[in-house]
Amino acid sequence: MFDKTLAQKAADNLRTLREKKPLIHNITNYVVMNYTANALLSCGASPVMAHAAEEVEEMVSLAGALVLNIGTLTPQWIEAMLRAGKKANALKVPIVLDPVGSGATRLRTESAKRLTRELSIEVVRGNASEILSLAKKETRTKGVDSLHSVEEAEDTAIVLAKELKTTLAITGKVDLITDGKSICKVHNGHEMMGRVTGTGCTATVIIGAFLAVDPDPVEATATALAYFGLAGEKAASQTKSPGTYQIALLDALFSIDEKELLAGAKIEVVR
Amino acid sequence: MFDKTLAQKAADNLRTLREKKPLIHNITNYVVMNYTANALLSCGASPVMAHAAEEVEEMVSLAGALVLNIGTLTPQWIEAMLRAGKKANALKVPIVLDPVGSGATRLRTESAKRLTRELSIEVVRGNASEILSLAKKETRTKGVDSLHSVEEAEDTAIVLAKELKTTLAITGKVDLITDGKSICKVHNGHEMMGRVTGTGCTATVIIGAFLAVDPDPVEATATALAYFGLAGEKAASQTKSPGTYQIALLDALFSIDEKELLAGAKIEVVR
Amino acid sequence: MFDKTLAQKAADNLRTLREKKPLIHNITNYVVMNYTANALLSCGASPVMAHAAEEVEEMVSLAGALVLNIGTLTPQWIEAMLRAGKKANALKVPIVLDPVGSGATRLRTESAKRLTRELSIEVVRGNASEILSLAKKETRTKGVDSLHSVEEAEDTAIVLAKELKTTLAITGKVDLITDGKSICKVHNGHEMMGRVTGTGCTATVIIGAFLAVDPDPVEATATALAYFGLAGEKAASQTKSPGTYQIALLDALFSIDEKELLAGAKIEVVR
Repeated sequence: MFDKTLAQKAADNLRTLREKKPLIHNITNYVVMNYTANALLSCGASPVMAHAAEEVEEMVSLAGALVLNIGTLTPQWIEAMLRAGKKANALKVPIVLDPVGSGATRLRTESAKRLTRELSIEVVRGNASEILSLAKKETRTKGVDSLHSVEEAEDTAIVLAKELKTTLAITGKVDLITDGKSICKVHNGHEMMGRVTGTGCTATVIIGAFLAVDPDPVEATATALAYFGLAGEKAASQTKSPGTYQIALLDALFSIDEKELLAGAKIEVVR
Repeated sequence: MFDKTLAQKAADNLRTLREKKPLIHNITNYVVMNYTANALLSCGASPVMAHAAEEVEEMVSLAGALVLNIGTLTPQWIEAMLRAGKKANALKVPIVLDPVGSGATRLRTESAKRLTRELSIEVVRGNASEILSLAKKETRTKGVDSLHSVEEAEDTAIVLAKELKTTLAITGKVDLITDGKSICKVHNGHEMMGRVTGTGCTATVIIGAFLAVDPDPVEATATALAYFGLAGEKAASQTKSPGTYQIALLDALFSIDEKELLAGAKIEVVR
Repeated sequence: MFDKTLAQKAADNLRTLREKKPLIHNITNYVVMNYTANALLSCGASPVMAHAAEEVEEMVSLAGALVLNIGTLTPQWIEAMLRAGKKANALKVPIVLDPVGSGATRLRTESAKRLTRELSIEVVRGNASEILSLAKKETRTKGVDSLHSVEEAEDTAIVLAKELKTTLAITGKVDLITDGKSICKVHNGHEMMGRVTGTGCTATVIIGAFLAVDPDPVEATATALAYFGLAGEKAASQTKSPGTYQIALLDALFSIDEKELLAGAKIEVVR
């Protein structure tokens, strides 16, 4: 059921990441800045957080990928994201967008839509509600929590990915990745990941790190989510307490090696 | 000495909280955002941080409680708090305020007073210096640390709660909760809690979570502080090192069950 | 090779710090606020984060030292830093500056230079690239990571410290501290410190705490870095996993006592 080639690719991406240590430029929310910076370091990447309109173009020029995350957005931050994103597009630096809470408020939904419309974004990762909110249909998000399952969002996602000319990743019990043509599902992960704030945002930065070493968005995303999900499983084998789990997850990101990832990646190629 | 009915109520509130998983909308300081989000998740609630004036009214409409915390305030954030707070009042969403550092600077003291004056706030939680600063008397706060004991502030708090038409919670060795008529004291807690940044702010968000399931401010606050204090004791039974303690406290919030809370809550009804 | 008098001074500074518990006022980046606040608490100091232009002058008046850190700067934050810094200068409150990412973007380099020009700053701590960027020479920083070794920067630092009339601390495998006349090297530390985000920023706040109790900038900095480096070694003796290490480092800052520091401080007086 699980694809051997993609498991191998996951291991290769992890090795390349640790060799190249790409700079990942994040314009992200206040809640997760410390945690996602540490997650990127644990992976082998080099994080930088910079949001001033005056510097984002220069910073993204040094980066292997740009992460945009609207978790604690204001209109000014969205302008900085657009500025950084346009420069990233001009330089072919890949962008991953996390539309945190899209569907919960107009500001979030409209900002997420505007970013997908005005920028060429390689990957958008969210929960089912957040991704559905990017389609025209009415949908709701409970703060930053999904009110929908990945399954419910699957058909919409396939159509939407084509429309937006991007790769969509809906994370949940099983993760769905599609660019409208290819479809992959990642069966790694653990429910403990939902007990820690910012694990979705962390999935997003790891996708960013993998995009910095793998130009294929579907493949980079599937392999990144397999790696992150496997780390989630490994951490859960050590603790079921959420405080300790948050720390164990960083340790697992660091300790997983290529061999372990090759053996543990559960990526299904649907088509 | 300790009230059995309130201990039972604490257990009931915790159960209801874990069943209903209310959304808690936080407009709070940068220092504690990650930690208080994780604390809310560990309790069973669903946290969201959102501070843009453009979205706070919509976000609070989805919430079971609103937490306002002035720990890293600017005038713009206070405006967003007022906007969110007025909507919360219109919708009968309970508000808890944490006047971090009130008494240390005019901006903090005046902002805290303005919030209590312009909004109908269910509970204000602070240390003794912060609560005293809301009265007319001159007082001082050393940054965010109290220069006064809970005992010194008790009489003032009883008068002030009536004046402000709110419930005041002064946390310290023994916590005092009063609406000017009723007075409760919570004898749970551990001195290790003072060795970690943001435990006061965490007490506040837990009060917010309990307010989302218990409409009685004194009761919700006393039961929340008993639960949080008990978690502090449980964590201290495992470690006396502050880094590890910070994590153990999240674990304890998660692991404490109704039975443990019923047995361990030390709430004294003074009148 | 290692100086006994400075090792004793390190122990004395740590004791005084824990007795006096000075308030350390931080205007710092979002990524590290929680971690550096906890590090300051673990040392024995009392942290406060406050950045609003309306309150920084009052807050710094209560403080034993002011920490300026440009890690997630905007022009408005720099204005607040200048305002706080000028008041600090007037009141003889010592300032430590962390020019995070200086050399990576013009905004960072120019802001760091402006702060050193318009304020009288006791200590500037950075990695080699960041410190070199303050000299006229062209240099580059990879986001927040150094592209240079401490050795490469040594000669420039000695000249630059004189020019800027400040003490420069370049942290790396061996830390260099110089005011242009005196030169100290600190041989404490562990490579694991580079696997956690914000350890550089944490070194800076600990320098701030030591400056609050020791008026000699070179001595305060060398003793602070010996203490922090020793904590890094102690944490590394317990774990090589970065998540756990981040926590163990806070524990080590807390547990190291005067005797341990006297025995473990490796400060070399070069001249």
